[in-house]
Amino acid sequence: MIVGSEITSIRSARVKAARQLARRSARQRSRLFLAEGPQAVREALARPGRAVTELFVTASGGSRYEEIAADAAADGVPVHAVSGEVMAELAQTVTPQGLLAVCRFVDLPLEKIFSEGTPRLVVLLANVRDPGNAGTVLRTADAAGADAVVFSDASVDPYNGKCVRASAGSLFHLPVVVGTPLGEAASALREAGIRVLAADGGARRELDELDAAGGLRRPTAWLFGNEAWGLPSDLLVLADEAIAVPIYGRAESLNLSAAAAVCLYASARAQGARRAARAGDSAAAG
Amino acid sequence: MIVGSEITSIRSARVKAARQLARRSARQRSRLFLAEGPQAVREALARPGRAVTELFVTASGGSRYEEIAADAAADGVPVHAVSGEVMAELAQTVTPQGLLAVCRFVDLPLEKIFSEGTPRLVVLLANVRDPGNAGTVLRTADAAGADAVVFSDASVDPYNGKCVRASAGSLFHLPVVVGTPLGEAASALREAGIRVLAADGGARRELDELDAAGGLRRPTAWLFGNEAWGLPSDLLVLADEAIAVPIYGRAESLNLSAAAAVCLYASARAQGARRAARAGDSAAAG
Repeated sequence: MIVGSEITSIRSARVKAARQLARRSARQRSRLFLAEGPQAVREALARPGRAVTELFVTASGGSRYEEIAADAAADGVPVHAVSGEVMAELAQTVTPQGLLAVCRFVDLPLEKIFSEGTPRLVVLLANVRDPGNAGTVLRTADAAGADAVVFSDASVDPYNGKCVRASAGSLFHLPVVVGTPLGEAASALREAGIRVLAADGGARRELDELDAAGGLRRPTAWLFGNEAWGLPSDLLVLADEAIAVPIYGRAESLNLSAAAAVCLYASARAQGARRAARAGDSAAAG
Repeated sequence: MIVGSEITSIRSARVKAARQLARRSARQRSRLFLAEGPQAVREALARPGRAVTELFVTASGGSRYEEIAADAAADGVPVHAVSGEVMAELAQTVTPQGLLAVCRFVDLPLEKIFSEGTPRLVVLLANVRDPGNAGTVLRTADAAGADAVVFSDASVDPYNGKCVRASAGSLFHLPVVVGTPLGEAASALREAGIRVLAADGGARRELDELDAAGGLRRPTAWLFGNEAWGLPSDLLVLADEAIAVPIYGRAESLNLSAAAAVCLYASARAQGARRAARAGDSAAAG
């Protein structure tokens, strides 16, 4: 199952090649990235289209997650045994979990997200620079049942190791679009009949008011900006409307991941209510 | 305004004494902690009861945030000029912002949170070990208008530097209780007529269902556990009910700060709706 003997040198050509993928330029050249830990590797292997090109395992990782390594080998993925030191070099985490996959990029062109009808819930990340924040929003979007997440050109690379980790496997779950200029993405979404709402703490209209007015039921793209920057006016003009998550206490603002969770779950709830109402309609009609 | 000349040695007694507060044991002995950056320092100074005992500023921090240093001096707080190197040593951040305060502990005994009537919305942190997560939940609780946050005895120290930073000033905004055994806190809350809801991804009852049934309108304490652990059964028995944030997509779970944001804003909305309904009642009666 395991190819060759244990790699113990961080200077091995294979390790060096994988280690390079910590750099964005190397990732973009090869369209490959690293996914660390059992959850990410499991999700990558479960994805159709052979997302995993190589798997590195330590002795303890290989015995602890034997079924993952076996699944990879059964799929024809080369599995390399590595020492703990080599894994530490590759994984860029304080406590690597003994499994690390080299994966093919999973992003799609923007137009693909419209190929199966109008998406109902989309996330558009504008200038989100912190990879942990971006990955957490991706995970929350997945949990809220979003149809796609668009990382616009000025946002962090979703294949950054911290973003992959924070997404907790969600990078492999839902359509992700990378590098589209923000204005282009907003136009395409709007042309597809999706309302673009900018989450902005300074907006006059509040989320609950929009929700009560039924404004969250239609297909929506939430535009989220960098926490520290908020949304500058040149981004706000790209949205149909700016909406604030209300602050009931004395905090100045919410952090990005908390604000995104509140907005996305409000949309999911409102759209779920719409689905239930539709089901009720057809029941009443039938 | 500034006391003495610039401190340039990290071996100065004053710097060493402050630096020790990075350790929990030193904080607990002195009941003092460090708050870094303009936002935290401003909030600490705004707090009644002289929370700040000393302020360290770099030349650039002192000129950039002149009004903060002036406010501190006007309040009789000793302001010490320090070199960039000394600030880096004290601040424990990659990019210190040139201002750092030594503050008195701000937590209250548990019974104090009942002193002004029954709190409507309380957060109870059980075994939350990651200081960034805990601080973000504290900030979200503040934003959602919670009345208090209880860090139970097995949770991270809220005075940990990362937690203080992630709270973005909220540590100084709302009543915080530290170190109460979890069972004792849950009992006291329940005796005060507050329903204790455990946020648990595995719970059978979902948040939206409880909300629709009116179950979020009454005074509520949300019990949140460590993300990695979830809530073990010995914690679940402390709650009146376990409630799941629904997962609409394929994510396995939400991270703690996203789940807390969804739960706390659902409560805030439901309780706000109750207040509005009451206001409507009295208008109708009048």
